[in-house]
Amino acid sequence: MTAALFIAVCLILQCCFTASTSHPLDTLNPTEINKIRLTVQKSHLGSLPNLTFHFVDTEEPEKSDVLNWLSSSEKERSTPPRQAKVVARAGGQTHELIVDLATGSVISDHVYTGHGNPPLSFTELFQVSKLPLSHPKFKRGGSVNVFTRPIEGITMIVDIDLMQITMYTDRLRAPLPKAEGTDFQTPKGNSNSASCNNTNSGFTISGHKVKWANWVFHVGFNARAGVVISTASVFDSRKKKYRSVLYRGHVSETFVPYMDPTSEWYFKTFMDLGEFGFGRSADSLQPLIDCPENAKYVDGYMAGADGKPQKVQRAICIFERFSGDVAMRHTEINVPGKLIRSGQQEKTLVVRMVATVGNYDYVLDWEFEQSGTIKVGVGLTGVLEVKATSYTNNDQITESVYGTLVSENTVAVNHDHFLTYFLDLDVDGNDNSFVKAKLQTARTNPINATSPRKSYWRVVKETAKTEAEARIRLGLEPAELLIVNPSRKTRLGNVVGYRLITGQPVTSLLADDDYPQIRAAYTKYQVWVTAYNKSERWAGGFYADRSHGDDGLAGWSKRNRAIENKDIVVWYTVGFHHIPYQEDFPAMPTLHGGFELRPANFFESNPLL
Amino acid sequence: MTAALFIAVCLILQCCFTASTSHPLDTLNPTEINKIRLTVQKSHLGSLPNLTFHFVDTEEPEKSDVLNWLSSSEKERSTPPRQAKVVARAGGQTHELIVDLATGSVISDHVYTGHGNPPLSFTELFQVSKLPLSHPKFKRGGSVNVFTRPIEGITMIVDIDLMQITMYTDRLRAPLPKAEGTDFQTPKGNSNSASCNNTNSGFTISGHKVKWANWVFHVGFNARAGVVISTASVFDSRKKKYRSVLYRGHVSETFVPYMDPTSEWYFKTFMDLGEFGFGRSADSLQPLIDCPENAKYVDGYMAGADGKPQKVQRAICIFERFSGDVAMRHTEINVPGKLIRSGQQEKTLVVRMVATVGNYDYVLDWEFEQSGTIKVGVGLTGVLEVKATSYTNNDQITESVYGTLVSENTVAVNHDHFLTYFLDLDVDGNDNSFVKAKLQTARTNPINATSPRKSYWRVVKETAKTEAEARIRLGLEPAELLIVNPSRKTRLGNVVGYRLITGQPVTSLLADDDYPQIRAAYTKYQVWVTAYNKSERWAGGFYADRSHGDDGLAGWSKRNRAIENKDIVVWYTVGFHHIPYQEDFPAMPTLHGGFELRPANFFESNPLL
Repeated sequence: MTAALFIAVCLILQCCFTASTSHPLDTLNPTEINKIRLTVQKSHLGSLPNLTFHFVDTEEPEKSDVLNWLSSSEKERSTPPRQAKVVARAGGQTHELIVDLATGSVISDHVYTGHGNPPLSFTELFQVSKLPLSHPKFKRGGSVNVFTRPIEGITMIVDIDLMQITMYTDRLRAPLPKAEGTDFQTPKGNSNSASCNNTNSGFTISGHKVKWANWVFHVGFNARAGVVISTASVFDSRKKKYRSVLYRGHVSETFVPYMDPTSEWYFKTFMDLGEFGFGRSADSLQPLIDCPENAKYVDGYMAGADGKPQKVQRAICIFERFSGDVAMRHTEINVPGKLIRSGQQEKTLVVRMVATVGNYDYVLDWEFEQSGTIKVGVGLTGVLEVKATSYTNNDQITESVYGTLVSENTVAVNHDHFLTYFLDLDVDGNDNSFVKAKLQTARTNPINATSPRKSYWRVVKETAKTEAEARIRLGLEPAELLIVNPSRKTRLGNVVGYRLITGQPVTSLLADDDYPQIRAAYTKYQVWVTAYNKSERWAGGFYADRSHGDDGLAGWSKRNRAIENKDIVVWYTVGFHHIPYQEDFPAMPTLHGGFELRPANFFESNPLL
Repeated sequence: MTAALFIAVCLILQCCFTASTSHPLDTLNPTEINKIRLTVQKSHLGSLPNLTFHFVDTEEPEKSDVLNWLSSSEKERSTPPRQAKVVARAGGQTHELIVDLATGSVISDHVYTGHGNPPLSFTELFQVSKLPLSHPKFKRGGSVNVFTRPIEGITMIVDIDLMQITMYTDRLRAPLPKAEGTDFQTPKGNSNSASCNNTNSGFTISGHKVKWANWVFHVGFNARAGVVISTASVFDSRKKKYRSVLYRGHVSETFVPYMDPTSEWYFKTFMDLGEFGFGRSADSLQPLIDCPENAKYVDGYMAGADGKPQKVQRAICIFERFSGDVAMRHTEINVPGKLIRSGQQEKTLVVRMVATVGNYDYVLDWEFEQSGTIKVGVGLTGVLEVKATSYTNNDQITESVYGTLVSENTVAVNHDHFLTYFLDLDVDGNDNSFVKAKLQTARTNPINATSPRKSYWRVVKETAKTEAEARIRLGLEPAELLIVNPSRKTRLGNVVGYRLITGQPVTSLLADDDYPQIRAAYTKYQVWVTAYNKSERWAGGFYADRSHGDDGLAGWSKRNRAIENKDIVVWYTVGFHHIPYQEDFPAMPTLHGGFELRPANFFESNPLL
C-alpha cells in the first residue's frame, strides 16, 4: 500500500487551538497579532523608516497571577492583563515595546543599545540569500540537496540595514561536489504503517489545554521557542486532585559550533533560537511520516517581519504512542496454587514539532506517561553541513580536514549540538529545592561486623543552597538529581520530588576564551539551577545574534542567588558531539537524545495501579 | 474494549522454530534433549545416585566451521558435528560431558573440582523454598505479592545434596508489613491498543532464521542466556550482498548486589545467569501486554533437572515496531521554485523475551533497524526486594536503613543491576579492531591564524593493541568507541566499522576486596574487549554460584592478549544504580536502559535511501 493511498483512506485529523477557553499563557492568535501590528504602526514608530518586527509574543504574565487564575473557579477568576512584547527595528534602532491588547496602545517603548541583535527575520534571511544568486557563477543545480553542493572558499558579509554585500573574499577553490547520490528523497510507498483505526483518541484539546489520562497541560507555540508546555499537572487518584509538576518548559537556546577554524568556517557557531527561532523554523508536519496515523494536528501562528500573522499549517502534532514497550509487568509463581501474570502495555501521549533550520531537522517531542514521567526527546536528522574539497579518497588526505570524507570532494565537518531546555518545575507547589543524591562507597566497620560484607554504597543528599552549587557536569560521580518540595512530604515522611534522569554526558569542548564559547558559556555545564526571574528565559541571552556573552544563563548564575526552597528553574542541555560517517550522507538517519522527569516519592505508590 | 475481547478478536500468531532448515547454531530441540538424557542415563553416570542435569546446551561448534557452512552453497555444505555440552551432578560430583548426538554417546567426561557450582536447578530451588514453609509460623497470606510481606530476621542455610536446613538464625524481629496496597495486578481492560490488522508482517521465520527488511539473523534460546542472536548480517544494496555484523550476541551474566551489609542481607548479590539462568526464568509472554498485537510467538525448549525437555510457551516474541518515531526526514526550501519534503517513519523489528527472576522482571529486546543499527534494550520492572522494619514514617529513622521506606514497615533496599552482554562482532569479516576515537580540544596557532577562532575539537583515534587497552570506564573523557575491520575500506577509503553507542556510565561501587566484587570483578569497567575464545562466554565464570572470581572476564583479560585485527569479542554492561522510590511499590513502572550498534562508515551512504 502506498502512502498516497493511506492518505486517501485515512482522515487526517486536523484541528486547531480554538478560542473556546482561554488561559493567560495562550499563544497570540491571528486577530491579536494583527491588532499588535496596527497598534505599533499607528504609534510614533509607524513614521520611522524600515519598520520590521523581529519578536512578537505574549508579555509573560506574573507567575503569581497565572497561578491564582489557575486555582480560582471560573466565576472568581481575574485574568491578568493581556499584553504583548514586541521587538522591532525602526530607523536603525531596536525598540522593545509592550503593547496592551485591551486598549490597543503601546504602553512602554525602550530603545535597546546593548550588545547583540534581535533574531533575524526570515524576510531578511531570504533577501540576503538571494543577493549572491544574482551573480551567474553561483547558479547551482543537479540536485535537490543544495547543502551537498557548496561553492567553497567564498565568504561575504552583508549589511542587512543596507541589504548590500559589504565584503567579498574568494580565498580558495575546491571542486563542486557531484550531484549524484545526494538526493535525500525517500522512495514513495514506504509508509506502510499500521492502518488508521486509532482515531478514537483518548485526549481532548480545548483551547490550548490538552487533557489525557492523568495529565492536563497547556500547549503554546511561539516564533522563538516553538512548542511551549505550560502548567502541566498530574492527577493523583489518592488525593483526588491535580498536582503541579512543570509550570513552563521549552527549548531555550541551541548552540551548534562547527569544528573547522578556517576562514570560511570559523564563524559557523549557530544559536538557532536566538538567531532564527525554532517556531519560525517549524515545518508543516507530514502525516504518516512525521507523525503516525492517529495524530491530531494543530496549526501555529506568529508575526512576520511585516507584523502580519503567518500560519504554519500542522506545526504541532499530538498523538497517543503505542510503542510496543511494557509499562509494567510481573509474574508470580510463589503463591501456592496460583500462577499470577499481570501487566500493561505502554501508552503515552506525544506532543511533537519539527524545526528545520536550513540543513538540519530537529524532531522535538514532549512525551507524557501515565506513570507520571515526562520524557523529552530530541531527534537529529536532515542534511549535514559539508564543505567542498579536492580529495576523493581518504588516503590522499595528510592535513586535517576537520571532518569526514563522506562523498567524493565532500567533507562533512565535525560539530556539536547543544539543546538547552528551560524547565520551570513547580513540583507540588511553587517553592522547590535541588538535591544531589550522591552514591558513595562506604566500608563496613570490621570491629562490629555482623556479616562478612566489606562495602556497600549509601546515599548522601546535598541540597544546593545557591546557584553555584547547582552547576553540574555529568558522568564525574554517581548521583541522582532531584527537584523536591521540602515543605511537602508523603504519608511515609519522604520529601515529595521528581528526578531528572539525564542523558549522555556531553559538554562543550571549546576553550573558555574562544568567542563562540564566551557567547555560549552555559554549555560548559549540562545542569544549572537558577532562581526564577520572569526575564530569564533565553540561555544565550535575548539578543543572541552577535552577542558578547554579557547576558545569558552563565551570567545570571554568577549572581549566586539562593535557590533552596524557592521558585527555581532547572536548565538541562541535551548534547551531541557529531563525528560524521558516510551513513549520514546525503541525509542522516535520526540520532536520538533526551532526558526524563520521573516522579520520586511524588506519589504514595505506583500510579499505574 | 477489554483485553479479553481483543484476545477473542485477534489471532494470536503462534509459531515455532520449525525443523525445516537447520543451522549449526540451532537450539536443541525436544527430540535432541531427550536423546541427550537417554545417552547420559545409559552411560556410567546412570548408575550413580542423584543424577541431575544442570546445564544442557549445544556444544559450541568451531566458529570457522560455522562460517564455512554459512558461506557454502547448500549442496557443498559440511555441517559441523552436532554435539551437546552437559553439566550434571551425580554421586556428589560435577561432571562436564560432551554428548555426540549422531552416535548417541558420551565422548568426553571430566569431573570439575574447581571453585563454584553449576546453576541451581529449578527442582532444587523449588524443594528448598518448600522446606521453611513446612513450619507453621512461616505461613503467609493476604496478598499475591509475596515479596512485599517478608518475615525479617531469619536466615537459613540449606545443604542441597542433603536437602536439609543446616543452619537456622533468628536474629531480630520486625513487623510483618501489611498486605493492603501490595497487589501488583493491573485492572483488566487496560490493553486498548491499536487493533489487530497488522498481521501481514514483513518478516519470515524459517527454522531459527529470521529475515526482515535488510536483515537476516538466527534466533536461539537456551536455559542460561535466554535469547541468543547469531550470524546477523545486513544486506548492502550497493554491493548486492549480505555483510556480517554480529556473529553472536546475548546476555552473558547479571550482577545484582544489594547494599545492605547486615546479616540477613549481605549475601544478596545475585548473578542471575550463573545461579539460575535467564532462559530458565523466561516467562510465557502475555499477548497484548508483553508484546503488541502484531507479534509472532516462538516457544522455547530446554532440559529440566531430570534431563527431560521443558517447554516455555511463547518464550520469545518477534514483531515489527511502529514506534511513531521518524527514521529520517528533510524539508528543503532553498531549491528555487520548489518545496521538497521527504522522510519515512521508523519501522523496526524487535525480538523480545522476559526473564522473571523471582521478584524482578527483565524485558530484553534486540531491535533491528533498516539504517543498519542494532539496538539492545533492557527494561526493569516487577517487584522490588524489600525488608521488614519497625518504622512507619521516615521521621522515626535515625540509623541507616540502606534503602527507602516505600510503605509502612517496608524498606526497599538500595541495589544495582549490571547486565553484561557478550557481543562477538564480526564487522564485515572475522578480524576486527577496537578503536577509541577521542575528541580532544585543540588550540589554533595564533601565528598562522587565518581566522579569529581559538579552538576546536579534533578526533584522535587510538587502536587498542591488547586487552588492557580496551577496558573502558565511561563518562571520563569524550570518545566514540568503534569496532572496525582494518582490512576493509569504503570506496572513499574510510575504514569500515560499527560504533558502540553506550548508555549511562554506571559501574560497581563496591570495594575491590569485597567478596561479591571479587566474583564480579568485570563490573568495574563497562566495556572490555577480549580475543575470541570459544570457552569464554560467561563473564562471571561458568561456575558462578559461590565462585571465587578465578574464572571470568576480568581474569581472561589479564592475559592481555593481542586484539588488533583479530577475532574479538566486545563485552558491554548495561548498568543501573537503583535507589527505590515509593512509585516503585508494590511493583515498579519499567525503567529503561540499553545501547546501540550503529554503522560507522560501514555503508557507502545512508542505507535508508
